[in-house]
Amino acid sequence: MIEHKTQVRVRFAETDQMGVVYHSNYFVWFEIGRTSLLREAGLPYTKLEESGILLPVVTAQCDFLKSAKYDDVLTIHTRMEEKPRARIRLDYRVTNEKDEELATGFTIHSFIRRDGKPVRPPENFRNIMAPHFPD
Amino acid sequence: MIEHKTQVRVRFAETDQMGVVYHSNYFVWFEIGRTSLLREAGLPYTKLEESGILLPVVTAQCDFLKSAKYDDVLTIHTRMEEKPRARIRLDYRVTNEKDEELATGFTIHSFIRRDGKPVRPPENFRNIMAPHFPD
Amino acid sequence: MIEHKTQVRVRFAETDQMGVVYHSNYFVWFEIGRTSLLREAGLPYTKLEESGILLPVVTAQCDFLKSAKYDDVLTIHTRMEEKPRARIRLDYRVTNEKDEELATGFTIHSFIRRDGKPVRPPENFRNIMAPHFPD
Amino acid sequence: MIEHKTQVRVRFAETDQMGVVYHSNYFVWFEIGRTSLLREAGLPYTKLEESGILLPVVTAQCDFLKSAKYDDVLTIHTRMEEKPRARIRLDYRVTNEKDEELATGFTIHSFIRRDGKPVRPPENFRNIMAPHFPD
Repeated sequence: MIEHKTQVRVRFAETDQMGVVYHSNYFVWFEIGRTSLLREAGLPYTKLEESGILLPVVTAQCDFLKSAKYDDVLTIHTRMEEKPRARIRLDYRVTNEKDEELATGFTIHSFIRRDGKPVRPPENFRNIMAPHFPD
Repeated sequence: MIEHKTQVRVRFAETDQMGVVYHSNYFVWFEIGRTSLLREAGLPYTKLEESGILLPVVTAQCDFLKSAKYDDVLTIHTRMEEKPRARIRLDYRVTNEKDEELATGFTIHSFIRRDGKPVRPPENFRNIMAPHFPD
Repeated sequence: MIEHKTQVRVRFAETDQMGVVYHSNYFVWFEIGRTSLLREAGLPYTKLEESGILLPVVTAQCDFLKSAKYDDVLTIHTRMEEKPRARIRLDYRVTNEKDEELATGFTIHSFIRRDGKPVRPPENFRNIMAPHFPD
Repeated sequence: MIEHKTQVRVRFAETDQMGVVYHSNYFVWFEIGRTSLLREAGLPYTKLEESGILLPVVTAQCDFLKSAKYDDVLTIHTRMEEKPRARIRLDYRVTNEKDEELATGFTIHSFIRRDGKPVRPPENFRNIMAPHFPD
């Protein structure tokens, strides 16, 4: 298992006229969570892209439990529980400064080449992940 | 059941460096689908808000099947299958000009007052929906 | 001179907690105005890109006069007054259904190749524009 | 004069199909710069809003000099040079890790009440700013 935490401060641009964060922004924060996890694991997404591998979102889901407000400092908790195979799944939790859970969700990704063809996880990705998922 | 179709043209701002639409924009299009459905049903969301009722997203999910490209004209198919109760569910399909299915998804919404308190669907909403969901 | 009008309906996602449209969205609408002008003139931006020419924004300015609200149907008036040379300038006005002026602004663009090198306006662009700017 | 620096890391969502940051995002970063300046000066924008004062953008301009790329860590330099009166002006510079200047711009803001009526800068704002602008 790999776990990672990163923080974002809510931008004014992310609010809507309900006075809280517009819901689609959570998916942008999930992306920040997973790219931050990859960067810390030693494989920045930019490296993956340079090697010709993209990691598009196949499925995304979010349950919205409590509103995030402008200027809140939020923690995005990202977790990869299952050993990556043809697809990988990441789970997310978003909490605020009072440690209240605002949202939970997940994304599923496939590995593809620039031409759109699905591929197995590349070697640098497998090597980085292996120690976290002992058999 | 209520069904509705509306169209969007993909904006340059909605693309990302993979050369296709960034995934979180589909949730914005879903919002366009459901507000367009409500407007056509005779109850614009602005009216609902004026009566003090908000309809926040409780859950949002999307499966991404095929990429949308800049300048594509997409059709958002929105469908309410179940009679609205404390919560309502809307299902979406996004297709392109070749009638290819790009994404499918759903959102679940609750009715709340401005102070955040959950309420039953308001009368104007129930009246508008009733003919579409005969017992 | 070339003039063009196109419409957008304000999305919920485009509002902020002031209850009006977040200001940076006007620059996205300006982009819709100019790509719509190009499409109608017979040269969709996708065609320009296919020929290897990009038209990045060099300068963007907007004066915000009056707020746009959720669900408003706005008209984006786009105008190219000067014959395109190494750079082109487009002027914009955004009006609402009451014909109130909400914003005015402009953008300046250069023509570049994919490698970033500045180029003269391509021939297809010059041919399309010539009749609108007689000497 | 007040000067302030803050950093942002470029999000994937902020790129477009040219492979660089979509231009309207700079205006969102300018907002991060000025709210960060206010927070550090001791007057978070949330406090200003609680006292019923809003600070909408009246004019925004940006010159785009060089592209920002995904995952770049950028510095937003924000500067208030003139003593705030009915209107305030903020100037911005965005630089990357190699200290290259990517963009320069400014925004002008007015002070208004929730009902839209223009007001003088509120007392807490004037008190915070006074030491930075000795006569």
